[in-house]
Amino acid sequence: MTTLQDELIASIRNIPDYPKPGIMFRDITTLLGNPRAFRRAVDELVHPYAGTGIAHVVGIEARGFILGGAMAHQLSSGFIPIRKKGKLPRETVRIAYSLEYGVDEMEVHKDALRPGEKVILVDDLIATGGTAVAAVKLLRQLGADIVAACFVIDLPELGGRAKLEELDVEVRTLVAYEGH
Amino acid sequence: MTTLQDELIASIRNIPDYPKPGIMFRDITTLLGNPRAFRRAVDELVHPYAGTGIAHVVGIEARGFILGGAMAHQLSSGFIPIRKKGKLPRETVRIAYSLEYGVDEMEVHKDALRPGEKVILVDDLIATGGTAVAAVKLLRQLGADIVAACFVIDLPELGGRAKLEELDVEVRTLVAYEGH
Repeated sequence: MTTLQDELIASIRNIPDYPKPGIMFRDITTLLGNPRAFRRAVDELVHPYAGTGIAHVVGIEARGFILGGAMAHQLSSGFIPIRKKGKLPRETVRIAYSLEYGVDEMEVHKDALRPGEKVILVDDLIATGGTAVAAVKLLRQLGADIVAACFVIDLPELGGRAKLEELDVEVRTLVAYEGH
Repeated sequence: MTTLQDELIASIRNIPDYPKPGIMFRDITTLLGNPRAFRRAVDELVHPYAGTGIAHVVGIEARGFILGGAMAHQLSSGFIPIRKKGKLPRETVRIAYSLEYGVDEMEVHKDALRPGEKVILVDDLIATGGTAVAAVKLLRQLGADIVAACFVIDLPELGGRAKLEELDVEVRTLVAYEGH
């Protein structure tokens, strides 16, 4: 009997030395392209939250859009995009976050949700947590009740999961890898 | 009785003079954020293809990822991203396409599908068709059997739908607007 975790790990492609020497890149396009693995990953991420009144799944551009669209559909909730700056047409709240080299900004529509609404945040992977922590702060500026942050892949040694937990965010992940 | 079309039109936000004077921008973030409209749009786009052996839904970055993720989940098919250049980690095929000002390039993993596999292409909106036509050519380079191209919004006066039909692609859209 193959566990879900084994099946997901088998469906994720490992690319050594990408994008630079010493980094093992975890490529989820092969998971997304595998109908069974994709379906099982989405269903496993959302099932604890079915019927709990989640108003929106919030996806972080761009890979979080793929998972988040599927999760919102499965929960029959709305979907809210957090986008790179300059892509949303109406008034937004914006936050800067650190990348490996330099900073960038992400934003969300100011009227995307009402204060107190329950949301789930999603991205494909949690590493150092820079992006996810910024997304949590952004959503809390709008008054969101963040029920959980969901990721297919956790790289726990990089500390992102711990940072989210320090902010009292429940973190749900499906597979974890040692190292970077 | 409200028709699906009325409901979707009511959920799409119209933003005059965006991104520039004279353009009426059709903002689907309000549709995505409406649980019922989002769910109905996705289900209406995919239902003709349920059980017809669709191997993959192919989404165009970035709004096509949200709809495409949901559609692939609903069909229990795989999902393939077409991304802006430089975002995919393995060998790709790439194609240039025209934007209003200048050109850009999109790409897909070379091993994303096997020749003859049935796929559905999806994006939020079809206007001049520049992006969608390029995506069709890219997928045909990989040998894909493109069963349909799906869009929530059609702007028929801009000619994109007609261009896709000239390429023998079935086009499925949910709402149409006059003008730009």
